[in-house]
Amino acid sequence: MAVGTDLARDLAGIVGDDHVRIDEGALTAYSRDATPLFHARPQAVVLPGSTEEVAAVLRYATAHGIPVVPRGAGSNLCAGTVPLSGGIVLVLTRLDKLLEISSEELLARAQTGVTTATLASAAAAKGLLYAPDPGSHTVSTIGGNVATCAGGLRGLKYGVTRNYVLGLEAVLPTGEIIRTGGRLWKDVAGYDLTRLLTGSEGTLAVITEATVALLPAPAETGTGVAYFDTLADASRAVTAVIAAGVVPATLEFLDRKCIQAVEEFAGLGLRKDAGALLLFGDDGSADNVEDNLARIGNICQANGALEVTLAENVARAEALLAARRCSLPALSRLGSLTILEDATVPRHRMAAMVDRIDRIADQYDLRIATFGHAGDGNLHPTCVLDPDDDEGADRAHLAFAEIFAAAIELDGTITGEHGVGAAKLPYLTDRLGDDQVALLRRIKKAFDPAGILNPGKLGS
Amino acid sequence: MAVGTDLARDLAGIVGDDHVRIDEGALTAYSRDATPLFHARPQAVVLPGSTEEVAAVLRYATAHGIPVVPRGAGSNLCAGTVPLSGGIVLVLTRLDKLLEISSEELLARAQTGVTTATLASAAAAKGLLYAPDPGSHTVSTIGGNVATCAGGLRGLKYGVTRNYVLGLEAVLPTGEIIRTGGRLWKDVAGYDLTRLLTGSEGTLAVITEATVALLPAPAETGTGVAYFDTLADASRAVTAVIAAGVVPATLEFLDRKCIQAVEEFAGLGLRKDAGALLLFGDDGSADNVEDNLARIGNICQANGALEVTLAENVARAEALLAARRCSLPALSRLGSLTILEDATVPRHRMAAMVDRIDRIADQYDLRIATFGHAGDGNLHPTCVLDPDDDEGADRAHLAFAEIFAAAIELDGTITGEHGVGAAKLPYLTDRLGDDQVALLRRIKKAFDPAGILNPGKLGS
Repeated sequence: MAVGTDLARDLAGIVGDDHVRIDEGALTAYSRDATPLFHARPQAVVLPGSTEEVAAVLRYATAHGIPVVPRGAGSNLCAGTVPLSGGIVLVLTRLDKLLEISSEELLARAQTGVTTATLASAAAAKGLLYAPDPGSHTVSTIGGNVATCAGGLRGLKYGVTRNYVLGLEAVLPTGEIIRTGGRLWKDVAGYDLTRLLTGSEGTLAVITEATVALLPAPAETGTGVAYFDTLADASRAVTAVIAAGVVPATLEFLDRKCIQAVEEFAGLGLRKDAGALLLFGDDGSADNVEDNLARIGNICQANGALEVTLAENVARAEALLAARRCSLPALSRLGSLTILEDATVPRHRMAAMVDRIDRIADQYDLRIATFGHAGDGNLHPTCVLDPDDDEGADRAHLAFAEIFAAAIELDGTITGEHGVGAAKLPYLTDRLGDDQVALLRRIKKAFDPAGILNPGKLGS
Repeated sequence: MAVGTDLARDLAGIVGDDHVRIDEGALTAYSRDATPLFHARPQAVVLPGSTEEVAAVLRYATAHGIPVVPRGAGSNLCAGTVPLSGGIVLVLTRLDKLLEISSEELLARAQTGVTTATLASAAAAKGLLYAPDPGSHTVSTIGGNVATCAGGLRGLKYGVTRNYVLGLEAVLPTGEIIRTGGRLWKDVAGYDLTRLLTGSEGTLAVITEATVALLPAPAETGTGVAYFDTLADASRAVTAVIAAGVVPATLEFLDRKCIQAVEEFAGLGLRKDAGALLLFGDDGSADNVEDNLARIGNICQANGALEVTLAENVARAEALLAARRCSLPALSRLGSLTILEDATVPRHRMAAMVDRIDRIADQYDLRIATFGHAGDGNLHPTCVLDPDDDEGADRAHLAFAEIFAAAIELDGTITGEHGVGAAKLPYLTDRLGDDQVALLRRIKKAFDPAGILNPGKLGS
């Protein structure tokens, strides 16, 4: 390929000509990630082939004050990998070796660019479970999952990415390679940099390798569905399930607007008269799964469910889960610009929060439907717009500012699992306060004195 | 009480005369924590009654460059709360309100000085489990548990303190009060300060309140014991249990020297001819507990166990657990100076590590027995000495340096759950490398520009 600038020539000297791109196609493609409305053009796209090359690129960038935006699959929804200040997009997908799956130590070790699904499949082949399962898992990388502390459908029972990261190899913006944590569950030697880097969104260091904990795969899984007249009923059922001492692996919901969109899109035979659909699932020994699903079903019925169905087999369970999986594509079809957010509240406040979302949507004359993780209060209000409707986008912006404020007011947060990135940075001070944001900036400076790593995001 | 210095007068102006102590008794008592051989005299002991008083003390200390050592029960074993540079010992035990136990949200919220056992009992009364169970739980405080990322016997199945901390209130050395995290499992707004403060050993901020996650209490628990000829056999059995997909709640071991010391001390009827004792336990539904214990027993037998016994009732289970609980007192009786360490290695390397420990003990002519958490490779080699034997203490020092080096060589760490404090700071660079230690220092400075908080510990 043609390398036309000093920057590209210098970078090619590190990673080789074939792994630096400054062509129009690449610069355009890497101007965006999966987040609508945000884009900014980099000067070069670099694909290093080793940790040492990552270190050399970072040393070069620090020396020359050039911004560097680390990026895995770019599937994030918070504009976390949009190169706001130009510079280099550092694409880590060539670091794609799955290094180890250990049944003995219940862990996996992988280079940063291995997709989460690849890691999870390799673990499954040995009878092991990698528990975090973000919606993007087939394309997203393990490094990206760590950098964003990715969540997923199993958060309630299994926790999120941070609960599984044991150790990291990472490169500081100044080029030093560090190894944090290791292969142990118990290790308190030093500040917990493993967890500090988890969720740091590429602003503190570039993660090049991760060691993650695995679990023995559960013997059985089971799924059921319940319909309710109102989301308030569904929310009460969820609270009652937890209060009864059942912590199911999956507890997802769709609101009325989602149910209708999904049914119109996929014709799954969902009840369009229902105000809420609750999808529940558990895993473990066959007896426990059966017991827990029956208990959840009974609790739903005691809390006014219109109908409860337990899937009698795997195929039927897949059909039920399809309703949840279809939510985003079904909503996206309604307008080609889809803004997917993830305000989160304590689970017993879910219905109150969705009520606030609905009122805000009406006030701003927007189509916002909400689905999400009922078990951990992680809501995904989704606004669908015509991409040419600039005025609609402005209204959506104002509406989401109110939605985030409502979440904070209800003891919640502006982002449960998608991250802050550029999209939620304007709301961070509302959540954390001035003193904590000032502290984040000082921590950022301790890692990145020249401020080259992912500028305009966390810590900026 | 008499307040005889300017420092004491100034501090009394913040917390009141009754809560500042400069008398000989107090200064002597707070010269030490539970760690042998380390002591240093503070100038004043201060017991604040509110977060605001903590903030005022810290602002005063930063303004005057006076060291402050935050302290809960002082039960740590790494000299983490010894006031090496004098100054103020900030005792947090008056902040002892248990603020909330929520069955609905599965969480507890407590001021920092609440003991772990108080919190756990209050949770148990509502049918809930606070999973971390450090050996010190009846005296240690929840704030101290968070500050040290305390572990315990249930680490393998349930993880350690970091896996349960949802949110913190903390005071920066410069006096700002911050609230990190909150009431949610999923919250990625900002760097993960909640986990960064967890295990920061009072060097970054003073924790004044913690919100921790609870679980539904398991319906049943069960316990069994297996004897082996050698620890290598026991270690193989542990590896086989995990490889069979069983992750028991408890998996503890005693080596030959521990078994003998415990039996001589407590006369529990342990087999003194055995080279290793493995104590295993699980919790959950009655069926699962029964199944898992039977499977573990069978795996032990297949791996050469001399004898396997499953406790038929709670009283018998308690008797079995007594062997583990007696280990430290039984060893302490052999010499009144007891140095209890916690080098940690991947679990399949436990036998190799204990072998190394035994050879090092022989080489330095020391009595070192080892017990610990076989499930997570967290070993507690324990050296017993005559306190007047200065030369023996020197040899112990050299021996432990070799033990830590051996742990690092075996992919392990210098401390699994006790912390770095002053005791393990000399070995930290061996574990983390120069670049990472330099980074810890920069992070420390981001929190504590004047370097007043617990100097001579992590980040110094």
